[in-house]
Amino acid sequence: MSSLADRVECPELFAKAMPVEEAVRFVEPGNTLVISGFTKAGEPKRFLPALAARLAAEGRGADLSLLSGASLSEEVEAPLAPFLRKRGPYMSSRASRKLIHERKMDYADIHLSQFARNLMVGLYGGVDVAVVEVSRIRPDGSVVLTSSVGVSAEGLAKAQRIVLEVNTSAPDYTGFHDIVLPPVPPHVGWPVPITNVGDRVGTPYIPIDRSKVVAVVESNVPDYPVDFKETSEAERQIARHVVAYLARCREELGWGKRIPPLQSGVGNIANAVIGELYDSPFERLRFFTEVFQDGMMRFMEDDAKFECASSTAISLSTAGQKDLARLFQRTRERLVLRPMWLSNSAELITRLFVIAMNTPIEVDIYGHANSTHLDGGRVVNGLGGSGDFLRNAYLSLLHTPSVRKLRDGRTVSTILPMVRHVDHTEHDIKCIVTEQGYARNTEIRSPYRRAEDIIESCAHPYFRPLLRDYLRYAGDAPPPETGAQPFRGGFWAEYDAACRAFPG
Amino acid sequence: MSSLADRVECPELFAKAMPVEEAVRFVEPGNTLVISGFTKAGEPKRFLPALAARLAAEGRGADLSLLSGASLSEEVEAPLAPFLRKRGPYMSSRASRKLIHERKMDYADIHLSQFARNLMVGLYGGVDVAVVEVSRIRPDGSVVLTSSVGVSAEGLAKAQRIVLEVNTSAPDYTGFHDIVLPPVPPHVGWPVPITNVGDRVGTPYIPIDRSKVVAVVESNVPDYPVDFKETSEAERQIARHVVAYLARCREELGWGKRIPPLQSGVGNIANAVIGELYDSPFERLRFFTEVFQDGMMRFMEDDAKFECASSTAISLSTAGQKDLARLFQRTRERLVLRPMWLSNSAELITRLFVIAMNTPIEVDIYGHANSTHLDGGRVVNGLGGSGDFLRNAYLSLLHTPSVRKLRDGRTVSTILPMVRHVDHTEHDIKCIVTEQGYARNTEIRSPYRRAEDIIESCAHPYFRPLLRDYLRYAGDAPPPETGAQPFRGGFWAEYDAACRAFPG
Repeated sequence: MSSLADRVECPELFAKAMPVEEAVRFVEPGNTLVISGFTKAGEPKRFLPALAARLAAEGRGADLSLLSGASLSEEVEAPLAPFLRKRGPYMSSRASRKLIHERKMDYADIHLSQFARNLMVGLYGGVDVAVVEVSRIRPDGSVVLTSSVGVSAEGLAKAQRIVLEVNTSAPDYTGFHDIVLPPVPPHVGWPVPITNVGDRVGTPYIPIDRSKVVAVVESNVPDYPVDFKETSEAERQIARHVVAYLARCREELGWGKRIPPLQSGVGNIANAVIGELYDSPFERLRFFTEVFQDGMMRFMEDDAKFECASSTAISLSTAGQKDLARLFQRTRERLVLRPMWLSNSAELITRLFVIAMNTPIEVDIYGHANSTHLDGGRVVNGLGGSGDFLRNAYLSLLHTPSVRKLRDGRTVSTILPMVRHVDHTEHDIKCIVTEQGYARNTEIRSPYRRAEDIIESCAHPYFRPLLRDYLRYAGDAPPPETGAQPFRGGFWAEYDAACRAFPG
Repeated sequence: MSSLADRVECPELFAKAMPVEEAVRFVEPGNTLVISGFTKAGEPKRFLPALAARLAAEGRGADLSLLSGASLSEEVEAPLAPFLRKRGPYMSSRASRKLIHERKMDYADIHLSQFARNLMVGLYGGVDVAVVEVSRIRPDGSVVLTSSVGVSAEGLAKAQRIVLEVNTSAPDYTGFHDIVLPPVPPHVGWPVPITNVGDRVGTPYIPIDRSKVVAVVESNVPDYPVDFKETSEAERQIARHVVAYLARCREELGWGKRIPPLQSGVGNIANAVIGELYDSPFERLRFFTEVFQDGMMRFMEDDAKFECASSTAISLSTAGQKDLARLFQRTRERLVLRPMWLSNSAELITRLFVIAMNTPIEVDIYGHANSTHLDGGRVVNGLGGSGDFLRNAYLSLLHTPSVRKLRDGRTVSTILPMVRHVDHTEHDIKCIVTEQGYARNTEIRSPYRRAEDIIESCAHPYFRPLLRDYLRYAGDAPPPETGAQPFRGGFWAEYDAACRAFPG
């Protein structure tokens, strides 16, 4: 643990150090805030709760706009949620979700690759305050971030006022980051000169306008850990099918032992896949992904299995955080933390032939996927980078259990005739994997034949007869306007009855 | 009109000249063909009908795979359709459509930007025969294309056997094209060094392996013209709203008189918009688009209004073809014809801040769009490049009339509670325009508020009350499984009755 004086090398900014309770005064009614933080990593863990406490004490209403990289921890977002009028481009807060559904908070769910540029261009208006967690303030006032990048650089460039939260309990992340701002008019766009996962083309720090810094506050709160459950047998089975699919592609497309760079979603199945890949014949893996997570730490110790990684955040469990502390120097040499416009860039995902993997909420038999909404109307988290990766990937796959048990006792199928919100279309998904098997969508093949394959290869055997019936009906039936249906009471009523009767 | 000897400068290949009826013998049962052609431009107009005639004479079944850039003219595709087992990545043939719906032909609808790379990588297997229309064969055997590029270069690189159809009636397009193959493993990807619409980075010809050329045939059939209807008052009104929206963006985003490069879909509304832009205060326009079409020819004569254009095809009406003949040299200097992996590239569309405009079949009140299917199950054409441009654009807009009169007498709303096939999601559309007005989707704003705006700004006044009712219901209702509905007989039944009762 360092002192504030160790970490703030710029006297002009050290003079602006103040208690966080004073610093929150710089947020005025109606302000737009851009903050650091991505999937719980590197968020301003002292400033936001202190701001919430002050607003609560003042009895203020919901008039702030909060823009972040991606999700924050509930400890940070929940207290502030009642004071937010607008939130974007991603959240996974129970408190915000409730207010969004009550229509008290506006929420926009935006491709993460595009958000930073939209912000810089001015599509969301101006930025009043940037609040950014940093490892270190350098002698000239430039700052070194902590465990994520997200939109911190854009926030600092665009804000009228800057608050720097120096985390003295976090390790000094100097050397992890590679910072570049997206080109926006009147500048012309340029080719991003990155041609491999580990390439660095920017600076390890962010230059700032010192005169805009209104406060420096100290934090000693470490990143809140990400939780993982024990990997289930079903998840392990999904992971085995993913690796079998990749092994088949390797054979047919001639990769040899070197697999193209991998993107991996966040969550249990993703971690199971990473574990299975560790035990596969693939060597010298590269991860080009959004979040560097637990399963990848294991690769850090094995140069035969692993070459390098790129992400915009390091989000770890308590155990993972211990591994990182132990392997901090190795990780610094092998992992680049990029701004999210680059970690998720269409240009780079295409160029690097990234293989994208994600877990959807549900998919349909034609290959469309829902990643954001329950029952069509209730947003769960948001799209995040799933669209960035699935659309632009060399190969894109969705992995999901074929059924999911709900709290109300029903067991629902994740393979449906129709998803209730479409985030990814049939044109973007090249493979669907469940614990039952996988279905590829890389041949010249009509939708009904793809549907047959998805039903027979991926759906749970219990739901297959119902899905087969739907497909038969869909092919020959009159258009939906007529209301004619072969299912007594409609497909969804029969499906719902089947969900209730699922054995076990 | 030139002679074949004028256009074939390579003696080795001139010796392979033969009647087209002989050349078609090189297509064997089960072959995969990659052909030139994009939106009727530059297709092999003699070879394909001659091949169809031979297959018909032999009584052959449907066993060929036909892969093209985009759509072919019906004169070329219809005779061959009965002999096709697989078709991709786009078609707009009535004959093929019928066979696809009868499940006699498999059709895959693929993002045009991704098709060439998928083909090169081998996702669709090998290529047996490439049939490419050319302007000229150079002394070393390299070829100069005609009015489109599409996937001709990839077809020539990948095919076992090559047939060159030399069009001696078409002008010599030498100097129009800028050819580069997409990098595919084992080569590493590289940044495409294009930073403005008119940049050229490749060769004006395609090098080929002469030993793979099995036949050279002559054609004197000019490109079949594209038809346009007279612009209607409703189309002109849509175009005025598009320009009003762009003028507002110019004000708010500080463009000055120079608008970012424009992409324009194919069709009547697109042409009306181009016409309206000609009369707008915008100067020195640049088009970064898929198809160079009629409306753009007018710009060719006016250096104050126009700077340069990039596309993968020149598709014109009979009148447009005459204009092109007259302005051939000016057009060559101001228009680059690119392979479709570059004309539609995510990397370039992002970098150049392209403004994308497209006409959908229908959109929903949340901002999702259907560009491909009628009634959910019947494919019209395909996605083409609409997803490439809408997803990656700086600003993306959909323009459509608010209602459409069907042949059966009903008038349907193009603004619906739910589209029956999703090709573009709410995350990709930044503005919807009808003759009623426009609704922007670039604020931090929840879906229901966006829906209110789309209904009030874009829907036809006749359908607004029904859509308002739907939105009210959707917000407060139980999930769809329960079947509970405030609409007697369901929303779609009430909507259908309204379509029948539309006045006038």
